Amino acid sequence: HSDFILTFACPDRVGIVAAIASTLAQDGWTITESQQYADPDTRRFFMRVRFSADRAVALDEVRTTLAPVLEPFEMDWDLHDASAPLRVVVMVSKQGHVLNNLLFHTQQGQVPIEIVAVVSNHPDWRDVVEWHGIEFHQIRVTAETKRETEQFVLDLMERTDAEALILARYMQILTDQMCRDVHGRAINIHHSLLPSFKGARPYEQAHRHGVKVIGATAHYVTADLDEGPIIEQDFRRVDHRSSAAELAAMGQDLEARALVHAVRAHAEHRVLLNGMKTVVFD
Amino acid sequence: HSDFILTFACPDRVGIVAAIASTLAQDGWTITESQQYADPDTRRFFMRVRFSADRAVALDEVRTTLAPVLEPFEMDWDLHDASAPLRVVVMVSKQGHVLNNLLFHTQQGQVPIEIVAVVSNHPDWRDVVEWHGIEFHQIRVTAETKRETEQFVLDLMERTDAEALILARYMQILTDQMCRDVHGRAINIHHSLLPSFKGARPYEQAHRHGVKVIGATAHYVTADLDEGPIIEQDFRRVDHRSSAAELAAMGQDLEARALVHAVRAHAEHRVLLNGMKTVVFD
Amino acid sequence: HSDFILTFACPDRVGIVAAIASTLAQDGWTITESQQYADPDTRRFFMRVRFSADRAVALDEVRTTLAPVLEPFEMDWDLHDASAPLRVVVMVSKQGHVLNNLLFHTQQGQVPIEIVAVVSNHPDWRDVVEWHGIEFHQIRVTAETKRETEQFVLDLMERTDAEALILARYMQILTDQMCRDVHGRAINIHHSLLPSFKGARPYEQAHRHGVKVIGATAHYVTADLDEGPIIEQDFRRVDHRSSAAELAAMGQDLEARALVHAVRAHAEHRVLLNGMKTVVFD
Amino acid sequence: HSDFILTFACPDRVGIVAAIASTLAQDGWTITESQQYADPDTRRFFMRVRFSADRAVALDEVRTTLAPVLEPFEMDWDLHDASAPLRVVVMVSKQGHVLNNLLFHTQQGQVPIEIVAVVSNHPDWRDVVEWHGIEFHQIRVTAETKRETEQFVLDLMERTDAEALILARYMQILTDQMCRDVHGRAINIHHSLLPSFKGARPYEQAHRHGVKVIGATAHYVTADLDEGPIIEQDFRRVDHRSSAAELAAMGQDLEARALVHAVRAHAEHRVLLNGMKTVVFD
Repeated sequence: HSDFILTFACPDRVGIVAAIASTLAQDGWTITESQQYADPDTRRFFMRVRFSADRAVALDEVRTTLAPVLEPFEMDWDLHDASAPLRVVVMVSKQGHVLNNLLFHTQQGQVPIEIVAVVSNHPDWRDVVEWHGIEFHQIRVTAETKRETEQFVLDLMERTDAEALILARYMQILTDQMCRDVHGRAINIHHSLLPSFKGARPYEQAHRHGVKVIGATAHYVTADLDEGPIIEQDFRRVDHRSSAAELAAMGQDLEARALVHAVRAHAEHRVLLNGMKTVVFD
Repeated sequence: HSDFILTFACPDRVGIVAAIASTLAQDGWTITESQQYADPDTRRFFMRVRFSADRAVALDEVRTTLAPVLEPFEMDWDLHDASAPLRVVVMVSKQGHVLNNLLFHTQQGQVPIEIVAVVSNHPDWRDVVEWHGIEFHQIRVTAETKRETEQFVLDLMERTDAEALILARYMQILTDQMCRDVHGRAINIHHSLLPSFKGARPYEQAHRHGVKVIGATAHYVTADLDEGPIIEQDFRRVDHRSSAAELAAMGQDLEARALVHAVRAHAEHRVLLNGMKTVVFD
Repeated sequence: HSDFILTFACPDRVGIVAAIASTLAQDGWTITESQQYADPDTRRFFMRVRFSADRAVALDEVRTTLAPVLEPFEMDWDLHDASAPLRVVVMVSKQGHVLNNLLFHTQQGQVPIEIVAVVSNHPDWRDVVEWHGIEFHQIRVTAETKRETEQFVLDLMERTDAEALILARYMQILTDQMCRDVHGRAINIHHSLLPSFKGARPYEQAHRHGVKVIGATAHYVTADLDEGPIIEQDFRRVDHRSSAAELAAMGQDLEARALVHAVRAHAEHRVLLNGMKTVVFD
Repeated sequence: HSDFILTFACPDRVGIVAAIASTLAQDGWTITESQQYADPDTRRFFMRVRFSADRAVALDEVRTTLAPVLEPFEMDWDLHDASAPLRVVVMVSKQGHVLNNLLFHTQQGQVPIEIVAVVSNHPDWRDVVEWHGIEFHQIRVTAETKRETEQFVLDLMERTDAEALILARYMQILTDQMCRDVHGRAINIHHSLLPSFKGARPYEQAHRHGVKVIGATAHYVTADLDEGPIIEQDFRRVDHRSSAAELAAMGQDLEARALVHAVRAHAEHRVLLNGMKTVVFD
């Protein structure tokens, strides 16, 4: 059995769907999922097509078949094996609620990823991580060593064939260089409904403003801190009774869920970048 | 400018999308929306394709072009002019909150329908309806006259070219014959989260059970009362403090919104019947 | 039958509840609702007590009984007749969805207010308002006449004994003087989840950021535009498919609901000011 | 420092709050939380009062002071030490998502309970439980041994001073005798929005009906299976695309959250029984 996902973005024009659908039909593929979106502002067309067949076909073979068909459309395109879990490295600091939720949902088979390593600037979660049979690396981050530790993570990703980096409440700011190095494949969770309450202590800011809703935002990492393309936001109603500390405690559930949601969407190749925004097919 | 929507259901097989996409591409149509769903239980395939071109084309002409392409796939298919609002007749009893909300959203251009007439077994909403420039008919429903008044509604729909019947808190039970006559084109709003609390006084039932969520259900009318295919459900959290009367008051917003949502989806040809269920493309 | 609501804020200390409860019990009142909140940051205590008896008692008589009991606690306190609807003046501009929803819910007995007049800088809603039997005043607002028209509104409120001013999508900025004149008794609806997207065109800002949630905020009017104490926020999930115009259309429901919710809370004397925030008892 | 919670239910009459507030004030207690509810149907009055003082006072001493004050009101009352976590025994079967979530939130200090033991009819979760330093007991349940194993649980609760029993997806039906033995102190999580889809395979039932919302219900255990007083329901929107298996996977989050919410409310003594319903102060 073969199961692939094609994603692409290109200028909108007549015949895109026809070209792809005809090629797949001729080769006996069944289209099992198909989502499209045309951005009326930029006239750009985004598509995700999942197709399968009851025979073994290599990814490269499909790529070779599709390339000449897609070429005339000036596409940014990608082809993924839908049956292979996405290999990821996770970074975490002292707070483990997001990591814990990701570990559990992954273990339950609800997120198609394989966590190949966890890196932390604290020792706290070593036991849990190793209990899951995952390698754990503690790093020491200072102004002087920051770039060095980042290089360690990049090397680790290369060594483990990791395709994505998940910041599960990793509280150190990445260098601009690192942000560029993992562009489009690193996901962060911020503990506010961005663009509200950027930066530090968002729950205290929310408390001070007396807002009636709090939330969390999972987004791609960019050099503009807390400004990367939003993948998912989760949120809930609150009222005057909650202290900043209680908002933070409530927010943990939102953070954990938003990140799992975003990682699942990314791992299922449902997220396409559209400038500073995303297209998330559901 | 031409703008059409094709909807269909058929047995799932290879080549459906390719056949349609190729035909549309050859004729210079741009596919602006495309949604598909394959039911894994029944192996049935559902699709909605919206396509447009910058020239005037008659609906019948498109139908003639598509018919031979679609024929081999054993489809139930329909073609709609996306630029024409759906013509509907609305029925209402004493409570006017659902009607009022539908009138307002229609007037604001947010639901692509034209309300051609309102029929009621009460005089209460005549003024509001006529103020909107819509014809209003009061009917008198008794056990003896029920079928007669239903025939009046059917005749009215025929005379006004109405394509759908909306029961906006119309509290009389339709005869089985009437349910069959308007099959697939009549939408009712029930004031509970079906299948909970069928029948009369659902908010009292909800209150007695001490549930923490109430809701409303918009569904197609079938002879099985409160059992028709669900199009939309809206819901909200409640707690012990609300009396049955207060639940009913809160529920009015849910009913009004759920019906508008369902009518919009139906009028945009986003709802396809799948046995006793629906496929609602969003 | 008599039905009163006492609201107050004071420094937190032992014996407040006891003093009030004892006084009310001695006079044969039944406490039907009681809510309290102690702000741990400011050590201020907020309370709302509703009490009733099966005999006619004048508001002033209760006030005279309570005054000496409350005096030692350095309270800001207010006593309200719970059976009298709050008299309000509403201001609106071209968009009528919030006004319409407020009119309908008021007419249905779901908001304990009496709308004594509507003022607008546009003629569009005269018919609807007068159809409800409410006086309508059109004003012409220019830089030169702004203060004059505001004085007209203040005079109107005085003449009609209006206790609150509701800005139901009134798009003119009030002068600082006017904001002070109606301090604590004017409610505005802003079409974003404040403090996100202050100022003009919030839905366009939301669209540009690609947020996954939009909302509306009802707040007390202060001279700091869009910064007044928040009473209520309503919100919903959105995705990449919605244009700025579609977000605005979806947002109308949120705005209409958030304002009705806030006006109901204010009219039921459930909202107490706590610096730049509110305490909203529910 | 002393911190107590008084909860009670009694016939509604004048002077209840005054009697309690005066007694507490005389003894120098500060009321930090106070919630009340009068059921208009049954004329029963429910109250929860939390009070504290900066000195050490024994629970029994407070009980002795309050008893004569409360006695005339025909109360069912309870006094709790708010600083002592509730001791609980948890039962689980093969699915561990609810247990895992409860363990994590408890460890994070977000639920004021101490899990003193976990009992399961499967060995799967022994490692995780023991990793948390909690004793784990595997039982073997057959028709013949059911009552015996229940007695084991009752003995375990007595030996460990456990005050509550949490069924975290324990899939064996308790005997009527056991239901009576743990009346008012056993909480179950059912994987549907009760009273919808009682009994087995609720997600399959939900899928068959094509509902647009799924949920989970935490309720007190009674001999009427899935009919006990509802404490909390959590829910989310779904659509036609989800298979029964996917609904079940989504529902796991709802079950986990609803149970944690209910256990927290119960452990904070916020839940009072009101016949077949609950009063849940928040």
